[in-house]
Amino acid sequence: MTHELRLSLTLGYDGTDFHGWAVQPGLLTVQGALEEALGMILRRPVRVVVAGRTDTGVHARRQVVHLDLTDDEAAAVISRSSLSLEEALLRRIDGTLARVLGPKRGAVVVYEVRRVPRDFDARFSALDRSYVYRICDARGEWDPLTRRMAWWVPQPLDAALMAQAAGLLVGVRDFAGFCKPREGATTIRGLHSVRVLRAESGMLEVRLRADAFCHHMVRNIVAALVEVGKGAQTPDEVGRRLEGRDVRRRPAMAPPHGLTLDGVSYPPPEELAARAAVTRALREAEPPGEEQVNTSFP
Amino acid sequence: MTHELRLSLTLGYDGTDFHGWAVQPGLLTVQGALEEALGMILRRPVRVVVAGRTDTGVHARRQVVHLDLTDDEAAAVISRSSLSLEEALLRRIDGTLARVLGPKRGAVVVYEVRRVPRDFDARFSALDRSYVYRICDARGEWDPLTRRMAWWVPQPLDAALMAQAAGLLVGVRDFAGFCKPREGATTIRGLHSVRVLRAESGMLEVRLRADAFCHHMVRNIVAALVEVGKGAQTPDEVGRRLEGRDVRRRPAMAPPHGLTLDGVSYPPPEELAARAAVTRALREAEPPGEEQVNTSFP
Repeated sequence: MTHELRLSLTLGYDGTDFHGWAVQPGLLTVQGALEEALGMILRRPVRVVVAGRTDTGVHARRQVVHLDLTDDEAAAVISRSSLSLEEALLRRIDGTLARVLGPKRGAVVVYEVRRVPRDFDARFSALDRSYVYRICDARGEWDPLTRRMAWWVPQPLDAALMAQAAGLLVGVRDFAGFCKPREGATTIRGLHSVRVLRAESGMLEVRLRADAFCHHMVRNIVAALVEVGKGAQTPDEVGRRLEGRDVRRRPAMAPPHGLTLDGVSYPPPEELAARAAVTRALREAEPPGEEQVNTSFP
Repeated sequence: MTHELRLSLTLGYDGTDFHGWAVQPGLLTVQGALEEALGMILRRPVRVVVAGRTDTGVHARRQVVHLDLTDDEAAAVISRSSLSLEEALLRRIDGTLARVLGPKRGAVVVYEVRRVPRDFDARFSALDRSYVYRICDARGEWDPLTRRMAWWVPQPLDAALMAQAAGLLVGVRDFAGFCKPREGATTIRGLHSVRVLRAESGMLEVRLRADAFCHHMVRNIVAALVEVGKGAQTPDEVGRRLEGRDVRRRPAMAPPHGLTLDGVSYPPPEELAARAAVTRALREAEPPGEEQVNTSFP
């Protein structure tokens, strides 16, 4: 069976009731639900490739996956409708996902199906990933309706100090101090930006963009920034934690439910192949099992 | 047992997992959970009086209740702490509510405990109630994280047309066309304002303020406005539905989960007694069981 067509899917999910992204036997995972729905439509086992795996309890607003279809499968999806393949598949996914999710219907939404070049790889072609971490830092703002998407912190945080500390982390740096290093895998990442801002809702948002993130990197950075916001650590202390210095005062990781993968960006079509080749080469220099690929290795 | 002290509590809740506000045997309700927590603290059955009962699935951001304590009970709450009664009770409620709610911890949050005059009545002293109804009117904005608090409508709505229709409803009017009238109970209400606005999140918000609302009035108004926003009805048709005219094209009520009781306002202390007397007199002219009291009866 040759696969003639490559499609990308953009999806969002509420990670609350899932055991993370990756398929695990006997557990409800986002990948598992999506692949089950796609399998019902294509009548065969389906595996998708994802841009960024997320941990248990972490959400996504614009996650990206890719999968391949044969021409025959595409024709079967369109069937006798007058819809395009993309529209027809989107509608079929809506229906089958609702059946797969049952009472959790709506916890995963596929926003878009796109035909992409064969060089497109949801994981290896990605230029960068954006995350947002939401914090409610006033008891009066602990809205029960947003309790599944925001970390409730009891005292007001100093956003300006947090932004100052965040600024010290930006750049191509070794984030060993903010993640659990794995034997043989680099912890050097290119953190393009970290913004700390107050949303209209009153929530504090930490918005981060990087070529890739080490495992638990965002949640460790956020925990450190919150310590600064409380006045329990200085921005300088956070800066010193880079490259593994001054690791004595390391707060517990921020909880997963405040974290959302906000988006993934890709280069223009003509650069997809080159980008994937670069990332894949770096990836293959590392032991298997690394969660997110590093592309800023010097 | 004489009750010497009257307290008001301000609370918020996620109505998703509750069978509405009002206590029902064998069912999880917000009132039931709150009274159980208060009963554990005061070691006696507790009944609270609420500003606005909410239906199954409806949320609240700033709901208000009152209850009475004896001096002895107040002393027992404070115990040996150096806290004020208000602070001590708030802390105790936090702990007991968490125990009562178990895995639903955080679904109800008490924000404030206040000592109020004996003339204060959470229900009868209220000047007006504010509700917000949230709508996601673009498929790309159907964020799984907000699916429990917003109505997902598949097509973009014309907010300007909706605002125009909303304007026709403002005033002291007979809302029989927007609620299920009850024998002997008036359906005249004073609707102070209806605003239709686009929030930073991209969601459409319908914000309503009235002295009181008939049962299902907000959800019927929102359903009518959404028909206008879709272009399926004209603002004039909505206007004609006032006073029961032109009831042919009545859309299904908007679902409960988009609706949140946003707040309740009260007069200054010196006017509490007079306000309660006025509302109570109107209330007693109606048969029992009416959900929300009307105070704008001419």
